[in-house]
Amino acid sequence: MKHPTSIDDSALLARCLELACESASSGGGPFSALVVKEGEIIAEACNSVTRDRDPTAHAEVAVIRKACQILDDHQLTGCTIYASCEPCPMCLGAIYWARADKVIFAASREQASKAGFDDSLVYREVNIPGPERQIPFYHLALSNAEAPFQQWQEFSERHCY
Amino acid sequence: MKHPTSIDDSALLARCLELACESASSGGGPFSALVVKEGEIIAEACNSVTRDRDPTAHAEVAVIRKACQILDDHQLTGCTIYASCEPCPMCLGAIYWARADKVIFAASREQASKAGFDDSLVYREVNIPGPERQIPFYHLALSNAEAPFQQWQEFSERHCY
Repeated sequence: MKHPTSIDDSALLARCLELACESASSGGGPFSALVVKEGEIIAEACNSVTRDRDPTAHAEVAVIRKACQILDDHQLTGCTIYASCEPCPMCLGAIYWARADKVIFAASREQASKAGFDDSLVYREVNIPGPERQIPFYHLALSNAEAPFQQWQEFSERHCY
Repeated sequence: MKHPTSIDDSALLARCLELACESASSGGGPFSALVVKEGEIIAEACNSVTRDRDPTAHAEVAVIRKACQILDDHQLTGCTIYASCEPCPMCLGAIYWARADKVIFAASREQASKAGFDDSLVYREVNIPGPERQIPFYHLALSNAEAPFQQWQEFSERHCY
């Protein structure tokens, strides 16, 4: 299945690459992303992990947060995310929670890996049982682990969600 | 492989569940997380997706951002993340980028799913080829896609990273 690319897509990705180059040449991360709705750029962002001391400040996460503030909505239905590079699993997750329509990216994860940005480790770790991961995830089954969900359900029922 | 649980682990998870219940009963998401270093709670956070109109504001992402600001570091080496619920792939990615030591959680993804929080979709989608995903990811291979990485390398060499 191939995406029917348009001049717009290429132009918007070219904008991503321009932004990512600007970021890289001023000490930021070499990544950028746009949120586009009905042909209009709603928000632009670059990776600012080291500058902002925020490991979650990948371009896609940053641009989703920005666009949601601008649109005053916690979802990006009807929006396309353009990214200078293939999103990592964290950003993929963020894109799903934001319910964007689709993603179009320029550099592949293999190209990023060649440049020293190895997202493939995280792609692999997602599928490994928690306790066997490089960062182990342990499940400590407490008897009241579902209490927050019950509270949430009661609150929702009281407020007719 | 079983984690040798301690009284501290149970007590810290109990704190997570208490926070998550408080959050849920005041209209927030029923999730919380702590960052703990050398037995001390560095930061606490709850899910504030709908309140903050930020789909990335899961408890783990929020607590990582907060702890990094407090420690003035973009990494959380030496820290354990306690979470009221098993982290989703976005949060798993954030935990890897933060380089935390380990994760201990209370409710499983199956328990979350039963309560209507279905992270398993995102766990599945990570492994599906981009164009076939529910939110399709398209690779548009531009000839200058690696330009940001080259800029970054040049900048790094000039600044002796």
